[in-house]
Amino acid sequence: MKLGRLNHIGVATPSIADSIAHYRDVMGATSITEPFDLPEQGVKVCFVDTPTDSSANSALNGTQIELIEPFDENSPINGFLAKNPSGGQHHVCYEVPDIATAREEFEGMGKRILGPTRIGAHGTPIFFVHPKDMQGMLTEIMETPKDGAH
Amino acid sequence: MKLGRLNHIGVATPSIADSIAHYRDVMGATSITEPFDLPEQGVKVCFVDTPTDSSANSALNGTQIELIEPFDENSPINGFLAKNPSGGQHHVCYEVPDIATAREEFEGMGKRILGPTRIGAHGTPIFFVHPKDMQGMLTEIMETPKDGAH
Repeated sequence: MKLGRLNHIGVATPSIADSIAHYRDVMGATSITEPFDLPEQGVKVCFVDTPTDSSANSALNGTQIELIEPFDENSPINGFLAKNPSGGQHHVCYEVPDIATAREEFEGMGKRILGPTRIGAHGTPIFFVHPKDMQGMLTEIMETPKDGAH
Repeated sequence: MKLGRLNHIGVATPSIADSIAHYRDVMGATSITEPFDLPEQGVKVCFVDTPTDSSANSALNGTQIELIEPFDENSPINGFLAKNPSGGQHHVCYEVPDIATAREEFEGMGKRILGPTRIGAHGTPIFFVHPKDMQGMLTEIMETPKDGAH
């Protein structure tokens, strides 16, 4: 595959509300989406936009911080938060033009894919690759939204 | 402060050579800098460029992956690698227009800064903020290079 845009880094948090306050009040973020539930993946989610270019005012196209909070007691991030009670870096996510082609390529390289391809937080198909096959990084692969939005 | 560009995410690795092969052969990166030593910080470093925009060919201005390997037995990342033998996400780095102003702001908010302001891998002043004060994220703050380059 050809390396795609680093769409977001995923940050696990025990409280999205506290994390939003941190990114707004400590880090100075001005563009933060409303949190929403993603029950199929067991998380609540919101995105913090970062500027693409230091000199520009636009927040478009910068890599996003994805804040993820457990949705319920079955959330797949509960284990991570048990080990990291204050939260922390959880995964990275790269874009690809076509999810089926990317899945075939990773499978062809013998990389372990975690579960089926499914719809992610941006509304496009995604899958996760096992961190043990990705140098310790839980890696999400997502199909680029067709409208070019985040 | 106003949130700046997410300049890079720092990835600790036991072997930069192995990681370069991974980002080139598995992930399809086409723009990877030559590794160099940063003995004052106890690490060897290289950067993997990621594209800014999914539809563009340019690799300029995308968030970088910073690969860091221990320089010697005193490296500050040896502890991280002892806990994470295959490596993994180590820190994030945001740009600011002026490092002294940013340092004063973080100190004013009671955030613990780790050591003095010093010159980082991009040749501009940087400092690190304690992960316990940053929701579990070791956070590097770096002054934007004056030439607008990485």
